[in-house]
This record gives sequence, C-alpha cells and structure tokens, in this order.
Amino acid sequence: MGQVRVGIGDDCAVIRPSAGHEIVVTTDFCLEGRHFRRDWHTPESAGHRCLARGLSDLAAMGAKPVAAFLSLALPPGTDRRWVDGFFRGLRALADAVDVPLAGGDTAASPGEHILADIVLLGSAPAGKALLRSTAKAGDLIYVTGLLGGSAAELKQLAASPVTAKKSGGAGAHPQLFPAPRLSVGQALLRRRLATSCIDVSDGLSSDLKHLCDASHLSAELMLTALPIHPLASGSLDLALNGGEDYELLFSAKPATRIPARIGGVPITRIGTFTARNPRAAITTVDESGKRRKLAASGWEHRFG
Amino acid sequence: MGQVRVGIGDDCAVIRPSAGHEIVVTTDFCLEGRHFRRDWHTPESAGHRCLARGLSDLAAMGAKPVAAFLSLALPPGTDRRWVDGFFRGLRALADAVDVPLAGGDTAASPGEHILADIVLLGSAPAGKALLRSTAKAGDLIYVTGLLGGSAAELKQLAASPVTAKKSGGAGAHPQLFPAPRLSVGQALLRRRLATSCIDVSDGLSSDLKHLCDASHLSAELMLTALPIHPLASGSLDLALNGGEDYELLFSAKPATRIPARIGGVPITRIGTFTARNPRAAITTVDESGKRRKLAASGWEHRFG
Repeated sequence: MGQVRVGIGDDCAVIRPSAGHEIVVTTDFCLEGRHFRRDWHTPESAGHRCLARGLSDLAAMGAKPVAAFLSLALPPGTDRRWVDGFFRGLRALADAVDVPLAGGDTAASPGEHILADIVLLGSAPAGKALLRSTAKAGDLIYVTGLLGGSAAELKQLAASPVTAKKSGGAGAHPQLFPAPRLSVGQALLRRRLATSCIDVSDGLSSDLKHLCDASHLSAELMLTALPIHPLASGSLDLALNGGEDYELLFSAKPATRIPARIGGVPITRIGTFTARNPRAAITTVDESGKRRKLAASGWEHRFG
Repeated sequence: MGQVRVGIGDDCAVIRPSAGHEIVVTTDFCLEGRHFRRDWHTPESAGHRCLARGLSDLAAMGAKPVAAFLSLALPPGTDRRWVDGFFRGLRALADAVDVPLAGGDTAASPGEHILADIVLLGSAPAGKALLRSTAKAGDLIYVTGLLGGSAAELKQLAASPVTAKKSGGAGAHPQLFPAPRLSVGQALLRRRLATSCIDVSDGLSSDLKHLCDASHLSAELMLTALPIHPLASGSLDLALNGGEDYELLFSAKPATRIPARIGGVPITRIGTFTARNPRAAITTVDESGKRRKLAASGWEHRFG
C-alpha cells in the first residue's frame, strides 16, 4: 500500500506523505460520449485510458504515483461484463505503475451514460515539481515519443470499431492504450533536466500554448522536426492538433545535454522559446524556412 | 492559500503537507437527478451541498480542510445564472471554512444532467485521524445536532419547490444548507474524546451499521434518546433512515466525559456498543424497554 495508511472503507483515505515531499493532485473526468465510446473503445481500453489521463498529469509534474481514487456512476442495467473489463483495464495499468486504488464513490448514473472521474495523488520532492510557468526565453523545447498516433487510431476506430480485446503493447495502440511517461517525468525531475513541463493531452498546438502562456513566452516550432507516429501517415495536422498522445512536452536550458532516449523513450528537440511576441504565441518554421503563426486548435474531448 | 503551493493552472495542484501530519482524501459525486434537482434545490444550495458532502467526510476524520477540487460537466446551453449561483453557494461555504478551490476539471456533459464530482483534501496529525474501525465493546455512542431534518425538508421541497435563494442560517435548512461539523470533529481528535467516528450521510441506521461492521461490534440504540429535528415532527423513521443530516456519529469510552455541547453544537448520547451479536448489528430499545432488531435502510441518494 506504500503511503496509503487507510484505504477503501472509511470516510476518507489516509495518506502518509514522505518526509521532505509535496503531494500533487489531479482530477479528470472520463465521460462516455466525451472521452470514450462503448462502440469504439473496449471496456479494458476505457479503464486504461481513465487512469492514464491522471497518471499523465503526474508524469508532467515529475511525480511518483501514490494513490488513485475512482468515482464511477453506471446507468441501471449496465452489462456486468463491461464493468469487469473496465476494472481489468484500469487495474492492469495501476499494477504496472504500482499505484493502489484507495477510494472513490459510486452512484447510479442519472442518464444513459457511464460517468467516471479519476483522482490521482502523487509525490514529488518539496519545491521540485516540474511546472508550466518556469520556462525561460532561449530554452529549447522537446517532446517524448511520437505525435498524432492517438488521433489517427481514433479515426480508424470511428471507421471500424474494435470489439475484441487489444493488447497494450508499447506504442501499438496510442488511442486505446496510451502509455503515460511517468519514468521520463521522474528522470527529468531527478536529473534536473527540465525548466518546464506539460503533458500533451489537448494537442501539441494547445499544450505548447499553455506552456507559453504560463511562462509568458512565445515559441518557435520546427515542423520538420516533429516526430510523427506511423499511424498518422506524416499528417502535420494530426501531430499538431490531434490530442491525447499523453507524451511530455518540456523545455531545457540550451546548455543542458538532453539524451536521445530516457528509459527507452525517444526524446526529440522540436523548437525554442523566445521572448513573448504579442502577435503570435507560436510561430511554425517549415522546410523552406517559411514562418507562420500557428493557431491553437487542439482536440476538445468530444466524440458525441 | 495555506498548504496549496500551486493551485489552478498547472497539470496538478501542489500541496505542501504540514510536518507530522497525514493527508486525508475523499471524493463524492454530486449528480443532478441523484444528489440534487434543479426544480427542488436552488443553484446556491446545489453548490453548497456539493462541497458540504466532502467537508463532512473530513469532519468525520477530525481533519482540517486543505484544498477542494471540483470536476464539473454542464449540458450545452446550461443557464449561466444557474452556474453562477452554484459557484456562489460553493464559494460561500469554502470561504466560511477557509478551504481554497485548488483545481478540478471541466467537460461538456454527454446528456442533459449537470454532473459534479468534489474532491477534498484535509490534514490530520499523523496516526490520529478518527476511524470507523476502532470502537470497542462498552463504548458509548453519541450524535451531534439533530436528525431527520434534511429528509423532512426534502419532502417539503418535493411538495413545494423553492425558487428563491434561501439563507444558510444555522439549522434552518438542513437539506438545502447542511452544516458540516468540522469544528466538532477537530475537537474530538484534538481532545482525544472519540474512539470511532463517521458522518451521518446515508442515515443513522446505515451509518451506525457501518461503524458496527468496521469495528466488528453490535450496537444498542435508545430510541427515546434520539434528537429529532423539529422539521421531522417526531418521526423516528426520518431520524433513523432519513439520511443527509451530515451530523457526526461517534463513540467514546464510558469513562470519558463528553460535554453537552462542543463549539455550540449539542451532543446527545444515543446508545452503546456491545460485542458482535451475529443475529443483529443494531438492536433498538423503545420507551417501554422493548428490544427489536433494526434493519439498515438508509437513504440511497436517488431522487430520479
């Protein structure tokens, strides 16, 4: 149970923080029709994705998972096998990252949709959590893994929904079974490599803008450098705006040596932070050196 | 901001725990049609009740509130005035108990219902949080405040819904504006008065059974001692099974002197824990001394 002294079964869970550490907290909805569809996602995928959303936020802080809390509301008559599959997917990921399910809530859904809200608590050394607001002009911008694969697989699912259980093999199913980058985030914190960090949940264009806004900077993005997932077939649009890749987007001082891989995950330099340009938060540079203002138009968590 | 070092605007909130303290965590759904109705509850009441549910769980642990997180999903076209009223009610209570709103999530509701999930973090001295599982046979059973008022007011609302804003005057609206017993819970912990504690959210019969089950005990309940809210007009059924009173139900050693009031809130002795009786978790004793087995039939959070 790690830091969970009292888990499910009392009015609250009791967490014993490690000395010299802070607790980081994130909460995310996983609503049927918005964040998953029963006809596109297997129940295992829905459970995996629900937990992965929260874990990815912990990864972006460089935190270690401490405890998960799941609130789950089911419509009357929900197929028991669906619920079992959802928990199977959630628990497989929870076991893989060693985070206990320490509590939550249950209710009958007031409508026809399955409703979940996931809460994650993590732990980071005091004052060391990676933030969005601490990048500086001149810092280089990096991203983990590959972009656009999740949105590309979603398009495939919309055209031809899966019904069979899919494995969570590394990178094979970026939409169904995204891999939160916990070990990369923890390494960035531990080795003091990053000056800022966010996870790519809304889409690179939106999440890079979040970093720019929080740090009061602008950014130049090298389009030729973007690491595009094979499923996205070279689509810049999916790489920029696809969303739900759950990769980490971070910055580092120019003098910091960033390895090509961290824990086996490829790291790619994709741009540079600049002083705030009031006319453009993000400017793209294409293969001919042409510069364009980029609109943030990330994914909006809506399948309905 | 107290212990909240980073609040809304990053991937996670960052909480700096007090030295020697543990963090307690609770999460509760507040779903339209299950936990409130727009035609029965004012928006201020819905916001107040959402936060009060979580605060009451902190109170039952003897904890001090540290931070609240709200996930809120609105159906497209929700009246902005309703949302403003909801936040007004929530913030008024948050300000009254000095707990910051440190994060959360927003989404479009996939159906026609407003969906909320509230997360509360609290702080308690390490190893001292009040638990359900630590009562002993022979301990006396106490309850704060008055019982049955919330369910009684709910009946009134069903017959004649409110449309005007109601004040949260002490005890006047136990359904619309319940008062979580934070200061009583903290006093029970600080003065080491209680051997176990739970909040009365499901109903006395259900929540006393939760204490019995967690502590492996049975209980004798003196029906003539129950402090019934004036709105409940002496109804034993509402006092036993009404639910949502958000009072504290706790036990103390027979030798412990429990004051008649704590922080102005009346405390009433209502029974005694006994060794586990396999035939009855709870036995009631009426005015003639007649003993009956009590069925736990608390409220089920369903108005739909």
